Amino acid sequence: VPAGEASKSLRVAGELYAWLSEQRAERADVILALGGGVVGDLAGYVAATYLRGIALVQLPTSVLAMNDAAIGGKAAVDLAAGKNLVGAFHQPRAVIADTSTLSTLPRRAYLEGFGEVIKHAMILDPELLRQLERRGQALTRANPDIDALTEVTARSARLKALIVSSDPHERGLRAILNYGHTIAHAIESVTGYSEYLHGEAVSIGMAGAARISERMGLIDEETLTRQLDLQRAFGLPLQASGLARDAVLDAMLMDKKVVDGKARFILLEGIGHAVVRDDVPAELIEETVRGLVSP
Amino acid sequence: VPAGEASKSLRVAGELYAWLSEQRAERADVILALGGGVVGDLAGYVAATYLRGIALVQLPTSVLAMNDAAIGGKAAVDLAAGKNLVGAFHQPRAVIADTSTLSTLPRRAYLEGFGEVIKHAMILDPELLRQLERRGQALTRANPDIDALTEVTARSARLKALIVSSDPHERGLRAILNYGHTIAHAIESVTGYSEYLHGEAVSIGMAGAARISERMGLIDEETLTRQLDLQRAFGLPLQASGLARDAVLDAMLMDKKVVDGKARFILLEGIGHAVVRDDVPAELIEETVRGLVSP
Repeated sequence: VPAGEASKSLRVAGELYAWLSEQRAERADVILALGGGVVGDLAGYVAATYLRGIALVQLPTSVLAMNDAAIGGKAAVDLAAGKNLVGAFHQPRAVIADTSTLSTLPRRAYLEGFGEVIKHAMILDPELLRQLERRGQALTRANPDIDALTEVTARSARLKALIVSSDPHERGLRAILNYGHTIAHAIESVTGYSEYLHGEAVSIGMAGAARISERMGLIDEETLTRQLDLQRAFGLPLQASGLARDAVLDAMLMDKKVVDGKARFILLEGIGHAVVRDDVPAELIEETVRGLVSP
Repeated sequence: VPAGEASKSLRVAGELYAWLSEQRAERADVILALGGGVVGDLAGYVAATYLRGIALVQLPTSVLAMNDAAIGGKAAVDLAAGKNLVGAFHQPRAVIADTSTLSTLPRRAYLEGFGEVIKHAMILDPELLRQLERRGQALTRANPDIDALTEVTARSARLKALIVSSDPHERGLRAILNYGHTIAHAIESVTGYSEYLHGEAVSIGMAGAARISERMGLIDEETLTRQLDLQRAFGLPLQASGLARDAVLDAMLMDKKVVDGKARFILLEGIGHAVVRDDVPAELIEETVRGLVSP
């Protein structure tokens, strides 16, 4: 399928269903999802629904997919109204990540993946945070250190697998993995999924969530600064420009995580400690979005 | 949505997703499926996949939906290549059947529902078979006896619920509910789901499955005749005309139940006893389809 978020559509899923039925795919067949996050989400959704579900193996080829998208069984396609609005939970039988595939990624697509890795460090693992700070240069240089990459990827992927195993259907703990995503999804929706890569949008969203955490007195300024410095070290954006603030605020209320019209935020209470909060004052949300987004 | 199998499409599902997102439907909302089998399957599929699954209550208004489609959590839409090829398992929180809604059904749509009721009797329940034989006139007259209808519906729906509770994902026992469906789905596919109502196609398919059972020496001729007589008493078809036999045979190999290119049949070993068989000789399948289908 063509690269990019635009392929995560009901239309492309329909083409894949038609192809599978032409091939006479049966319930005992297996779908292999070879590619990045878009391929994993789309192929996962098709595997979840074709013949009411056939087996799936994830073969992620990007930093983002290896550390996040390929793990946990969340599959989905987008609607015009927002990201991942139609989907299913469908666990892969296996996830096989070959870090040698990362050497051919374009630089921007390589770096965006560290948005989710930094997220795992901030919400779950102070040691991963120290690793990222220590090996930042080795991971971001033109020919990244494969050992450092494998070490960080294995640790980050294990964290994700641990969380989703304990809460596969996102009834509790798993929600903390949405750190940064409330704002990220809104930015992606308003820009038609074309301006920012997912990890970049998450990076901007994490900057917002950390700022809200600090403003609500949950973390100190030093923790906020440590996160922002690390995001900068990996070349990740902290702000978005060229979009209307009101559109971003409006899109946030379309998010799946909205309950009774209240946006739900994942906030930090310290490095490695995340909490779910739906009591962020509307003025603080608006002020934060104003600080992140410029027209 | 418009009545008829044509509404069980990815396109109509897409319209419902768009409507739900316009209404800002949230994860805590509930979809009520008020209608017959098509509405239940379609709304069930949308509920299974919108926001990765929201709650569903089935409110069936046809004999077929009350006795079969609304119970068991199977939800699906059709592809051009075949019926129910894209779907999910999504149990309703409740199924509420008000038999007074049956009094306004067109006669043909009323009678087709007894295809599935007769199926439950043949594969599971000699007592239900005797009830249907005894109350046939009361159930098929212009103003059907509501007490007889409620009694038969309650018994038949309970049988279905019992089977699907013990095997919600069709890994074993539940497969016997597909009695008559191997041929029925092929006939529906070849006729573009427009010629025969589902219960009528199932009736033709059950005539075929019973004949195969008799030819393979699993049931005697008296059992076969008893089933065919009951189908006739409820005004249900035993044969299809106007379609190409080869097309029907070909479509059977597209069915979800096909494994390694072998069509799987549910056969009778007596009234109330069904078995899954994938060793029906190809010649017997062809001969049976020739007997059922005329050009």
